[in-house]
Amino acid sequence: MFEFMTIRELYELCLSGDQVEQDSLEYVELEGWVRTNRPSGKIGFIALNDGTYFRNAQVVYSDNLKNFDEAKHISTGSAIHVLGKLKYTPEAKQPFEIEATEIEVEGACDEDYPLQKKRHSFEYLREIPHLRVRGNTFYAIFRLRSVLSMAIHEFFQSQGFVYVHTPIITGNDGEGAGEMFRATTIDDTDFEKDFFGKEAFLTVTGQLHVEAFAMAFRDVYTFGPAFRAENSNTTRHASEFWMVEPEIAFADLADDMDLMEDMIKYCIQYVLDNAPEEMKFFNQFIDKECINRITKVRDSHFARMTYTEAINLLEEAIKKGHKFENKVYWGVDLNSEHERYICEEIVKGPVFLTDYPKDIKAFYMRLNDDGKTVAAADLLVPGVGELCGGSQREERYDVLEKIMDEKGMTKDTLQWYMDLRRFGGCKHAGFGLGFDRFLMYLTGMENIRDVEPFPRTPRNLKF
Amino acid sequence: MFEFMTIRELYELCLSGDQVEQDSLEYVELEGWVRTNRPSGKIGFIALNDGTYFRNAQVVYSDNLKNFDEAKHISTGSAIHVLGKLKYTPEAKQPFEIEATEIEVEGACDEDYPLQKKRHSFEYLREIPHLRVRGNTFYAIFRLRSVLSMAIHEFFQSQGFVYVHTPIITGNDGEGAGEMFRATTIDDTDFEKDFFGKEAFLTVTGQLHVEAFAMAFRDVYTFGPAFRAENSNTTRHASEFWMVEPEIAFADLADDMDLMEDMIKYCIQYVLDNAPEEMKFFNQFIDKECINRITKVRDSHFARMTYTEAINLLEEAIKKGHKFENKVYWGVDLNSEHERYICEEIVKGPVFLTDYPKDIKAFYMRLNDDGKTVAAADLLVPGVGELCGGSQREERYDVLEKIMDEKGMTKDTLQWYMDLRRFGGCKHAGFGLGFDRFLMYLTGMENIRDVEPFPRTPRNLKF
Repeated sequence: MFEFMTIRELYELCLSGDQVEQDSLEYVELEGWVRTNRPSGKIGFIALNDGTYFRNAQVVYSDNLKNFDEAKHISTGSAIHVLGKLKYTPEAKQPFEIEATEIEVEGACDEDYPLQKKRHSFEYLREIPHLRVRGNTFYAIFRLRSVLSMAIHEFFQSQGFVYVHTPIITGNDGEGAGEMFRATTIDDTDFEKDFFGKEAFLTVTGQLHVEAFAMAFRDVYTFGPAFRAENSNTTRHASEFWMVEPEIAFADLADDMDLMEDMIKYCIQYVLDNAPEEMKFFNQFIDKECINRITKVRDSHFARMTYTEAINLLEEAIKKGHKFENKVYWGVDLNSEHERYICEEIVKGPVFLTDYPKDIKAFYMRLNDDGKTVAAADLLVPGVGELCGGSQREERYDVLEKIMDEKGMTKDTLQWYMDLRRFGGCKHAGFGLGFDRFLMYLTGMENIRDVEPFPRTPRNLKF
Repeated sequence: MFEFMTIRELYELCLSGDQVEQDSLEYVELEGWVRTNRPSGKIGFIALNDGTYFRNAQVVYSDNLKNFDEAKHISTGSAIHVLGKLKYTPEAKQPFEIEATEIEVEGACDEDYPLQKKRHSFEYLREIPHLRVRGNTFYAIFRLRSVLSMAIHEFFQSQGFVYVHTPIITGNDGEGAGEMFRATTIDDTDFEKDFFGKEAFLTVTGQLHVEAFAMAFRDVYTFGPAFRAENSNTTRHASEFWMVEPEIAFADLADDMDLMEDMIKYCIQYVLDNAPEEMKFFNQFIDKECINRITKVRDSHFARMTYTEAINLLEEAIKKGHKFENKVYWGVDLNSEHERYICEEIVKGPVFLTDYPKDIKAFYMRLNDDGKTVAAADLLVPGVGELCGGSQREERYDVLEKIMDEKGMTKDTLQWYMDLRRFGGCKHAGFGLGFDRFLMYLTGMENIRDVEPFPRTPRNLKF
């Protein structure tokens, strides 16, 4: 007689307008967690969430209930089991409510529950990563994180890309990309006696490894965790984060930029389609510009401009009186203020900056014919600046070797990587997307600690 | 005039029988890597693979080619660019060939290329993980790995499960699940001075963390890397591997077994549908039983039997004269020979063994009313024995605390986990699937080192 329903199913049914289906469903069974319980005289209201949908179901109970007195005292956070009559309320804010005939407490919530009704600061909630996901903001974030992950996989798989699980533990020492964690089983640095018989690190990028797979599968991508042991406490740096790194063979920088543009637009449309309630929430409570900002990007043509042009335009702006905190000259690594000025004030939309000076970019980027710049492209978007960056890779063995020498790199641990150029190498390109930062961009969340389930930062390892 | 085509597109076109489409395509452009080049007098044949499809395209060239002499000497592994006329050969083994009008070498392959035409042993190929993917076996493995990953995501996402990126670096010391790597930035064990201000490990399981998310989203899963620093050199152990760990709230062991069964069957069907050429290859060259074995499992009803029944049946078998190498008695941790006897000889199909003695199982498994066994279930399949295992989790705070005390566990780093039971805990269950071993099972590959892109094992960290 009682049909088990999730709250998502109930919303879908009620909003579908399917009268036949609706008429056939009268009594329902629900399970979930109490968000609020408001008893009032001979009646009470429970806002119930069962994890399947962003919105709650309203459960109404009265003194017809056998355990009415118990029900009135069910605390926030408790897990309950409800039998009740489904009542359609198409005129009301919620399209249905449940008139409870039975409420059973499956798991009570102790009085010291840290998530009571009132609002809590994000700082406070970071102390309880195992519980904060039960509130609206983090519930929305972490469902969106899941939806966005699937967007990434669907985008690449639908185009025939092969997903590669590049290794987390690596013998490469980071290629200058930043400080690394070591993975070890010994108490000192006698690495000959360590687990692998040599020094081992946690990866900072899967790119070098995935390039090897691009030379077999043409189009490949990684999507997995990466690490930085940098002692920087900013809102945009975490010690552990997830990266998306596609690599495409027989492709140049223009193809790479096309791929970035397609991926960003696909993901924006995907989250709007698959997490509409969550996106509405962010737009209302976190960042009133967020849906407007991302739909604008989705509908834009992404401009392309060389670094050199950008420097010229910035210098012109300075001449016209615009003030930047940091100096502008050819060769400088652009600051966020410069990047934002370019995309917000000059281009007024997303723009790829290309062909950066080789000295401020990584060793594997392809040297342009001018001998000074490399075939790199960073995507700048209004609101944040750099969103992702890529490059065509240096496929010429001798040029690669020369630049590695110039940068003073030890080549022995990267001989295998260099050898990819000797054994049927070809034109290829790829990019890296910081998944957590992309999630921040889509939602307007301002601290990377608030988009990761259990964030890891310097001196902070909660559970 | 020349239309760019991938080899997958060409096969699909030629096998589609679409005459109109076929008639409209005459001249094509291809890029890829030379698998073999067989010049013979005034003509030559190149088997070309471009990474999009398991099978090669045959490129025929003759002395009409401007650079015929160069073409004859193109070495295995080289990257080339081909223009040519598409010739349909519906009667032949390959449904088309390309009559080259132009062949350009994009990247030659040096003479010391370790993958020449002849067969190489898997041992030899393990030394060159950056190159072995270019041969048939590893090409098939790593495409299947990608396809199977997507099967996992599609299975869970289509049912509303939320994907959770549980942390890799953890403060939990492994809960007795095995030896762990430490993640560190210091050269000694003065952990107060270490990056996180305390000892940090690489995770052995995401389960404990994902349970917290099941208490908000009901149905969740992880899919990511896990680590074991065990010094065991077997064909089934790697130091780094990928795990799938779903967790379902308001669910018991029976629900958990239903989920395992559904997932296994879904994945089998998915790889047969989405990697037919690769599966055919495994069946022909790696394990002649592989497709038969997995389709049988797909079509089976998975039996369920308690551990105690299994012990009784094994003891009966011994009485009837069957010999096992290892002793059988109630309380023993079953060996692979026992597990295989049960599913291969007794059940003759997949079987869940349930309700194991608590002393041989993990602390978080729910104690049964008998006080001796726990609500665990391992799935045994013919051919390998255990494929995955799960349990209902202990949701009663006091019972959990008692068993942690019995097992001598330190509770302070797991207080957050225990607290999930105080704050609206509910009946829940989950399981773990070793992704790499599942891939071995599906393909018949016998060494875990041969299904991981860059395998990590004791004293072995290649690149």
